[in-house]
Amino acid sequence: MNVLITAGGTTEKIDNVRSISNTSTGRLGCLIADDFSTNSSVEKIFYICGKAAARPESAKTEIIYVDSVASLENALRGLLSRVKVDIIIHSMAVSDYRVKAVTTVSDFGKTMLESGKISSNVDDLLLVMERTPKIIAMFRDVSPQSTLVGFKLLDNSPFETLIDRGFDVLTQNNCTFVLANDLTEISGERHVGYLIDRTKNFTKYETKQAIAEATVSATI
Amino acid sequence: MNVLITAGGTTEKIDNVRSISNTSTGRLGCLIADDFSTNSSVEKIFYICGKAAARPESAKTEIIYVDSVASLENALRGLLSRVKVDIIIHSMAVSDYRVKAVTTVSDFGKTMLESGKISSNVDDLLLVMERTPKIIAMFRDVSPQSTLVGFKLLDNSPFETLIDRGFDVLTQNNCTFVLANDLTEISGERHVGYLIDRTKNFTKYETKQAIAEATVSATI
Repeated sequence: MNVLITAGGTTEKIDNVRSISNTSTGRLGCLIADDFSTNSSVEKIFYICGKAAARPESAKTEIIYVDSVASLENALRGLLSRVKVDIIIHSMAVSDYRVKAVTTVSDFGKTMLESGKISSNVDDLLLVMERTPKIIAMFRDVSPQSTLVGFKLLDNSPFETLIDRGFDVLTQNNCTFVLANDLTEISGERHVGYLIDRTKNFTKYETKQAIAEATVSATI
Repeated sequence: MNVLITAGGTTEKIDNVRSISNTSTGRLGCLIADDFSTNSSVEKIFYICGKAAARPESAKTEIIYVDSVASLENALRGLLSRVKVDIIIHSMAVSDYRVKAVTTVSDFGKTMLESGKISSNVDDLLLVMERTPKIIAMFRDVSPQSTLVGFKLLDNSPFETLIDRGFDVLTQNNCTFVLANDLTEISGERHVGYLIDRTKNFTKYETKQAIAEATVSATI
């Protein structure tokens, strides 16, 4: 049985010295990898992560580094075209936007209006961002047979919204499970997560280790 | 003798999960710290760095972590108000801009024009960035007696431009030296740097170790 885990965060370049990152430690993905590696039915774990992510050390694990969403997509398509993966755990924090253009307020005004400038004396810089392709939507196309666990992270959301939005991700992307969690319930060793299934039933876990164990038992 | 070294890069938050970073390994700053630590006249090294930066391990070194430019400024002002620092090596890659607002093309148009919208059907996100305070300009105010080494990094610049722009940084901020370097001349162990003095004379070095040794001998 082969497992694919994405973890950590993506990084989109602004220029050669600046970049936009999704800050994710990858610690949960790492624990999930470690838990899978102790299971004798798991042959190989492909761990695709950002360069700053926590890394599992099991001999079964092959680590593949990515930075941008485009490099993540390339790595996933390449891997899934040559390897049959049974379980996909998509825990990576993937940027929704990437840099399309860097401009200034005055130049932006000109471009958008094709008329006189709004101001020529502004110190503001503008980063124009465009949507990235939805990585989670790709999995069902390139690896339809896999068990797929998606992740949904919100910030300071009511509990019902968290479950609803998590279930939306599940139905929109035909996931097997979605792990929904909220930033305000993650600190240090505490990590509250709700593992939602296709009937919208869910179980609550309160540590990364408990989430990791539940994710492995639910999917293996 | 007390030494202050800034190293690595700053990180400006966009929101609770996204941030803009200046990517700098801090390896050069770390080598400089290690070189200072072997000198018997150095009592203490304050090493102010981003969380991802390389870290010196000398017992003489106190590491102070910062993230945003504001936190860097606070840390520096706090430190320099209570400690007399003889030498300042400002190698940190400090962001020139921070996030002022996150908006969309259509909302931005409304705000800027106070009239009809430019478009209501755009997936583009806009990050409006404002200038950060110039950290290097602060050192002469709060620690006028210190020997000050500034850094100037360009990308694919002609040699003359690199020396001119480096010397501009020196004169504008009353530095003792400026280390000018270009991204295209930094890869792996190779790191070309020009240590420029107040007469615009300079010496070329070709490795991080050579730059570190020259910086220590020139300032101690």
